[in-house]
Amino acid sequence: MANDQTTVRFGILGCAQIAIKLCKAISQAPNATLVAIGSRSVEKASQFAADNGLPETVRVYGSYEGVLEDSEVDAVYMPLPTALHVKWAVMTAKKRKHVLLEKPVAMNVSELDQILEACETNGVQFMDGTMWMHHPRTQKMKEVLSDAHRFGQLKLIHSCAAYNPGPEFLTHSIRVKPDLDGLGALGDIGWYCIRAILWAVDYDLPATVLALPGAVRNDAGVILSCGASLHWPDGRLATFHCSFLSYLSLDVTALGTKGYLRLHDFIIPFDENSGYGFFWEASQVDFGKLAADDKRWCPEANEHKVESEEAQEVLMVMEFSRLVEAVESGGATPEKSWGVVSRKTQVVVDAVKESIEGGYKTVELIVS
Amino acid sequence: MANDQTTVRFGILGCAQIAIKLCKAISQAPNATLVAIGSRSVEKASQFAADNGLPETVRVYGSYEGVLEDSEVDAVYMPLPTALHVKWAVMTAKKRKHVLLEKPVAMNVSELDQILEACETNGVQFMDGTMWMHHPRTQKMKEVLSDAHRFGQLKLIHSCAAYNPGPEFLTHSIRVKPDLDGLGALGDIGWYCIRAILWAVDYDLPATVLALPGAVRNDAGVILSCGASLHWPDGRLATFHCSFLSYLSLDVTALGTKGYLRLHDFIIPFDENSGYGFFWEASQVDFGKLAADDKRWCPEANEHKVESEEAQEVLMVMEFSRLVEAVESGGATPEKSWGVVSRKTQVVVDAVKESIEGGYKTVELIVS
Repeated sequence: MANDQTTVRFGILGCAQIAIKLCKAISQAPNATLVAIGSRSVEKASQFAADNGLPETVRVYGSYEGVLEDSEVDAVYMPLPTALHVKWAVMTAKKRKHVLLEKPVAMNVSELDQILEACETNGVQFMDGTMWMHHPRTQKMKEVLSDAHRFGQLKLIHSCAAYNPGPEFLTHSIRVKPDLDGLGALGDIGWYCIRAILWAVDYDLPATVLALPGAVRNDAGVILSCGASLHWPDGRLATFHCSFLSYLSLDVTALGTKGYLRLHDFIIPFDENSGYGFFWEASQVDFGKLAADDKRWCPEANEHKVESEEAQEVLMVMEFSRLVEAVESGGATPEKSWGVVSRKTQVVVDAVKESIEGGYKTVELIVS
Repeated sequence: MANDQTTVRFGILGCAQIAIKLCKAISQAPNATLVAIGSRSVEKASQFAADNGLPETVRVYGSYEGVLEDSEVDAVYMPLPTALHVKWAVMTAKKRKHVLLEKPVAMNVSELDQILEACETNGVQFMDGTMWMHHPRTQKMKEVLSDAHRFGQLKLIHSCAAYNPGPEFLTHSIRVKPDLDGLGALGDIGWYCIRAILWAVDYDLPATVLALPGAVRNDAGVILSCGASLHWPDGRLATFHCSFLSYLSLDVTALGTKGYLRLHDFIIPFDENSGYGFFWEASQVDFGKLAADDKRWCPEANEHKVESEEAQEVLMVMEFSRLVEAVESGGATPEKSWGVVSRKTQVVVDAVKESIEGGYKTVELIVS
């Protein structure tokens, strides 16, 4: 990227459904522009470009290599099946292109380490595609959780992420194929639950991870539904459940000694199209407001409506591009914290899988 | 009770805080009246009567036996410490007085069986004091869960009941004393979580119960905070958490293949003083209502406001008294279902305790 550029030039590898959202996000981010898209066939890539009204300036490649060889691509967004991440993300980094990697980032932490090492060696920025991290609501909720006076010490986090895509999905989707998205529901949406839990505890890894009985796997062994309990030595606890077999649920609840926080759409705010996201919190310091003749015996939870001028995926692209610009134009070293949180999330994903495969055994995490 | 009476005459054993609520409930229930109260000292009982403005017609006894010997007492409400239940509930039944027993009903299922057997042998009605069972909201929620078209099959139930009564309580309350309410938080509020879970699955006992790591016990071994995972062979799952160490939380979430239900005050509706209780549910059949230009990408949960002319404790007293009247005046045999649900709840309470004491082992429930 030349120094006089003000925007990061993106290529996209693969034409997954989620790529449509990212095309829009890249076009809306003031510091990003889409310049190339690659698929395994040029027909598929061209069809995607036509279907989504991509400008004619966007170069269309019939291979992933085409995008990586394009010298005017600075950064690559990669919505490929999970099993392909290690190969293509490492190759992207070796081409000195920055990596915005869809989640789950890898089949296991060993693969992710190869990706992170390639990014570090080649001085490129890494970030995963966990969009909700970038919504301003997330920062507002963190302020609540960090308020020792109102929230106290965090004791419990519970998260549930589920949707029921139906029999066609459960038979044919790449998300249930062992050689593609082999982590199934655990990688697809359990990833978000685990990230939310780690986010709430400031990325302090739990001491133990224990999968809960009753995980459902398909004939190929891919997880369709599972849950786990996480435990920290200081007494903090977390539970989560993720499923392809239940109605839509996107819940996070956090309980502290003095306060409570919940929301029901943590992955994508239900009202995002309207430009805001809600959450609710309550704290015992409000009890003083209750008068003797109040009709409620407990104060109503405080509703927080957090406005955002941009959708969370746009904010993600903007933040990633800002970091890329800092490297390319500002001479900064890549920001490592995004790789750290991806890795911790993957460590817990791996532990849940290991616990299930070991007959619901307790997995102790050795922090390396 | 003579045949010409229209109200059940109650005695109360013990002057616990909860007895104040029940005194009011008995006075408000059209088919019940309070006639006697007994404490370990006549001073304490008299003070309670004065403090709560009980009519002078209420006889005040300086012993529990006094109430049980009173031939004009038909039924006894018993808010005694749990460890005393088996002795006094059995004695009450042997006096052919009906038993409304505060929860947790016993220290273990063996004690409860003695109580239930005494009630059966003596032909008296048994009911536990789980008030929320009697709110009309509970029936409305059951209709949602039972709607195969809208809710589908139940997959997951999660419940969290917590409050943080503070250091004074944690040092001195009978609820943390091993020889009084020795089940601690598990008996006090975990009871409600377990009941809610069993209620949601139509009282089908789980196959396995597994306590979650990190239970907190005081120096005497009484549980201050714990949780568990319950599992049914058909794939239904439940988790709960109960605690004396966190801010107020009274959550139940139920997830089905086609729908979702939640509420945040299941034990006592926050708005009960106003005469109603809320819950929320959503179902995929609503997705069709979403137009392309809708501002939300997911339909809003449907808010249900269920009105009740009476507080749930009044409804409990009314239902109990109706059953007592049916026995006394109508010649009916006592309704056994209340004992059955109490027993199943206690079976799971015992299993959670056993799992914790066994180092978080899986407890298989043999349905007897």
